[in-house]
Amino acid sequence: MANPIDFYFDFSSPYGYFASHKIDALAAKYRREVKWRPFLLGVAFKTTGGAPLPSIPVKGPYHLRDILRTAKYLGVTYRHPSVFPISSVSACRAFYWLDAKEPKRAKELARALYGAYFVDNMDISGADSVVSVAAKLGLNADELRAGIGDPATKDRTKTEVDKAIALGAFGSPYIVIDGEPFWGADRLDQIEKWLATGGW
Amino acid sequence: MANPIDFYFDFSSPYGYFASHKIDALAAKYRREVKWRPFLLGVAFKTTGGAPLPSIPVKGPYHLRDILRTAKYLGVTYRHPSVFPISSVSACRAFYWLDAKEPKRAKELARALYGAYFVDNMDISGADSVVSVAAKLGLNADELRAGIGDPATKDRTKTEVDKAIALGAFGSPYIVIDGEPFWGADRLDQIEKWLATGGW
Repeated sequence: MANPIDFYFDFSSPYGYFASHKIDALAAKYRREVKWRPFLLGVAFKTTGGAPLPSIPVKGPYHLRDILRTAKYLGVTYRHPSVFPISSVSACRAFYWLDAKEPKRAKELARALYGAYFVDNMDISGADSVVSVAAKLGLNADELRAGIGDPATKDRTKTEVDKAIALGAFGSPYIVIDGEPFWGADRLDQIEKWLATGGW
Repeated sequence: MANPIDFYFDFSSPYGYFASHKIDALAAKYRREVKWRPFLLGVAFKTTGGAPLPSIPVKGPYHLRDILRTAKYLGVTYRHPSVFPISSVSACRAFYWLDAKEPKRAKELARALYGAYFVDNMDISGADSVVSVAAKLGLNADELRAGIGDPATKDRTKTEVDKAIALGAFGSPYIVIDGEPFWGADRLDQIEKWLATGGW
């Protein structure tokens, strides 16, 4: 089997959410696995001078329109959250805590968190919200709550976020195939061609 | 015939150049005309806080890679210019001077300027370069040189640039179909679907 595809995303990123609906099926078509790697856009912005979309004049309002239009274009259910963007640190820590034990369930949790935020309009910034989403999947609430607060989880999360940024992830989604980086849900077509042809 | 499509672009924008290769054929498929409207990204950046790609850490190097990859993906000949980006004020003024007299030839001049910059690696920032590109198309060099310097041309250019920005053009290309804006050469697929279906 060829190298897995690295899928970097922020839990507060609509375009990351869109890609989360597509990337595994796309990869499977070319017999690839996908390693989900949440990171924190806010930290990346410190390097690039980037800013959350709603804070950018003209470009911000455009993107809200583009997000709603793109969701329909891609056939992905989307409801713009009342609170946007949010801090995704707790979600990120929950992911890496679970990933250390059960990587497959971590991906399942990530999907559930994205759905809670971008479909059910649930503010998932607090640890309690993250835990309640996880509990619905049958994960142990007390264990997860302790895990989110565990210094080892915080360290692992920081390491993963720093690694993502060192690798060049400045936006979400940021998808890397055999060293080739693709930024944006709008690069899925190029990604498909890259997987099919081996690159150009 | 339905409303023309408005195609806003900067002469120094690789993604605008890519779109310039595609937009007329795409529009013609749906019996639409395209109004080419060069504007100045540098002026737009004053509103949005945007910056030329090469000046942005991490994102800048990514985009250079993405530009080269996207050119091949779209099948558009591209050579990254030695001097990038450049001021496109003279090119813009030449366009609007000609557009006032012969709109069809203005489009032809725009294509030639894009080709000079992004294929022949010619720095088109100076009025002399713009005039020499135009002369190859059989345009009168003295008339154009005078036209570029004419206060009426400068006014028209300023008006057009301000209009584009007031309309929301914050990046290049920025394509408007019946009031719906699309930013980026990577929105050509959505544009095609929008034209085919009337929107969603």
